[in-house]
Amino acid sequence: MRATVMYGTGDVRVEARPDPKIQHPTDAVVRVLAAGVCGTDLGTYASMPPGHEGRPMGHEFLGVVEDAGAGVSDLEAGDLVVAAWRYSDNTCRYCAMGLHTSCRNGGRYGFDDVDGGQGEAVRVPYADGTLVKLPASLDSALLPSLLTLTDVFSTGHHSAVSAEVDARTSVTVIGDGAVGLSAVLAARRLGAERIILAGRHADRTALGREFGATEVVSERGDEAVAKIRDLTGGYGTDAVLECVGSGTALATSFGAVRDGGVISRVGLPQYTEGPIGAAMMMRNIKLTGGASPARAYIEELMPDILDGVIEPGRVFDLAVGLDEAPAGYRAMADRRALKVLIRP
Amino acid sequence: MRATVMYGTGDVRVEARPDPKIQHPTDAVVRVLAAGVCGTDLGTYASMPPGHEGRPMGHEFLGVVEDAGAGVSDLEAGDLVVAAWRYSDNTCRYCAMGLHTSCRNGGRYGFDDVDGGQGEAVRVPYADGTLVKLPASLDSALLPSLLTLTDVFSTGHHSAVSAEVDARTSVTVIGDGAVGLSAVLAARRLGAERIILAGRHADRTALGREFGATEVVSERGDEAVAKIRDLTGGYGTDAVLECVGSGTALATSFGAVRDGGVISRVGLPQYTEGPIGAAMMMRNIKLTGGASPARAYIEELMPDILDGVIEPGRVFDLAVGLDEAPAGYRAMADRRALKVLIRP
Repeated sequence: MRATVMYGTGDVRVEARPDPKIQHPTDAVVRVLAAGVCGTDLGTYASMPPGHEGRPMGHEFLGVVEDAGAGVSDLEAGDLVVAAWRYSDNTCRYCAMGLHTSCRNGGRYGFDDVDGGQGEAVRVPYADGTLVKLPASLDSALLPSLLTLTDVFSTGHHSAVSAEVDARTSVTVIGDGAVGLSAVLAARRLGAERIILAGRHADRTALGREFGATEVVSERGDEAVAKIRDLTGGYGTDAVLECVGSGTALATSFGAVRDGGVISRVGLPQYTEGPIGAAMMMRNIKLTGGASPARAYIEELMPDILDGVIEPGRVFDLAVGLDEAPAGYRAMADRRALKVLIRP
Repeated sequence: MRATVMYGTGDVRVEARPDPKIQHPTDAVVRVLAAGVCGTDLGTYASMPPGHEGRPMGHEFLGVVEDAGAGVSDLEAGDLVVAAWRYSDNTCRYCAMGLHTSCRNGGRYGFDDVDGGQGEAVRVPYADGTLVKLPASLDSALLPSLLTLTDVFSTGHHSAVSAEVDARTSVTVIGDGAVGLSAVLAARRLGAERIILAGRHADRTALGREFGATEVVSERGDEAVAKIRDLTGGYGTDAVLECVGSGTALATSFGAVRDGGVISRVGLPQYTEGPIGAAMMMRNIKLTGGASPARAYIEELMPDILDGVIEPGRVFDLAVGLDEAPAGYRAMADRRALKVLIRP
């Protein structure tokens, strides 16, 4: 088969790889119909040292079951399925809590002899636990939105759920990338009536408004904080959904949240230490969020997509074939595309 | 009147001060019956640079209303009252949320021409908002326990409430000081059936067991983490109540909490930065707690004290007269006393 492989900074290739086969009775092999390029893939694209063995890329995919091991009971060849961005057994103590990201048998695509999702096929470990059947046709127009359940929309949802967003919650979303826009949509879906989106890209914040943002703050850093404070009578908002991961975004979050409020982080931190000393303590600010246990949310979020209530797939503004995957990475890195969908 | 005043490291004196008088219509003057020495007072005792103007000490007190301004409607001379460790109007937006520590009109005793609590009398601003009437006699044996509502037991309660402790929550309490022991009692009161107390002082952890600790870990740092992991099948506990404030205690908290669990801090951080990078994120650990809005909890916690269900005043193991306040500070600093009660 052919698949997307990263070799170093800016060096992503499409090349031949061994066809995936069942190795364990709980495996399934999925032929990929659609895969997403994630912000973290872009991070690898921007920073991977050269000289490494190639790394198969991609952890957002949906497709058709091609083969299933003898221990797989809920799936059969021909099923249309979506994967969560990490595989997980869905039975361990952490999975039972809905924290599939901490599954004791879980792992990442593209590592440990498991394929990446940006290729023609993937061997999926713990297939019964990881894959969710999609009640849709193979050519459904809903596939891009269903694909967001793997990671990006589930991550936006995790940020809002972790902050306990409801109709009474005033919300700031930091970041107008695909995750930030997904967080806007998720907060709106949970009822939030006031959502301030902090982002500088007019085309992206325009989609943010369609997703539910009521105000846009295009300033950065201290100026963004001043603007958000202005908009909220000096208090800041009840919740801040931090969807970037930079130290600057974190500082803006502390400035934008009201005393006693919550900062929910889903942007992968690019820092190792943060300002959690006495000032945070005296203000009773809570810090929550984390890596999204997407698997825990798929069944809950899918109906609104199938019913057309939400269309999170609008974050995909460029679709390419597998051979154009490197061009897709470039378009995202150059900010010509918000998020790229690959159709192998 | 006479009152306790700090002049520098290890230099606390009892000296004459002007008698407090009503300055604003919302003030009351309270004659102090009992005052506590707080761990943060000890912090000042250990670190205050010399050469400063004296600072009136104490923010934990109860007493009798001696005079009330024309704008005070809920109190009259002779009322037995307890104060929260910060004064607050109890009407602003933050007070209405139960976050009296962020009251826009609030402040600290011992600053801004307001007396400290470790003296014969205190002018209390926003008396209607700050003071709570105690249905007890002036010589009640319950006064030490009622005094803990000002800060230490309310702070333990805040740590447990912020962590959403209930019967299903496994809890680690870091620290066997008066706040840590109060956190044990608070967690037990909220139903926790498993409470691991990390502390090294046998006499203190013995009281912790009487307050509800089910296990004691006397190791420190990495060894404490290993022990707590051993006790919990390798997972750690659902909640960690961090009642110390040191960087070491914070590191132990991250080691002792399970993935997806919560660290609730009430120890005043002695650090300005902490380890909140990608590792915390991947484990979905939440950080909560903060300065306790004691005023919000007094009415809720008082009945269990009046009914004899809990006896948080047992953390006071030394009572002194006002003239012995300096000896009381020394006893706490030398760890000969867990917590000192001053009777002016």
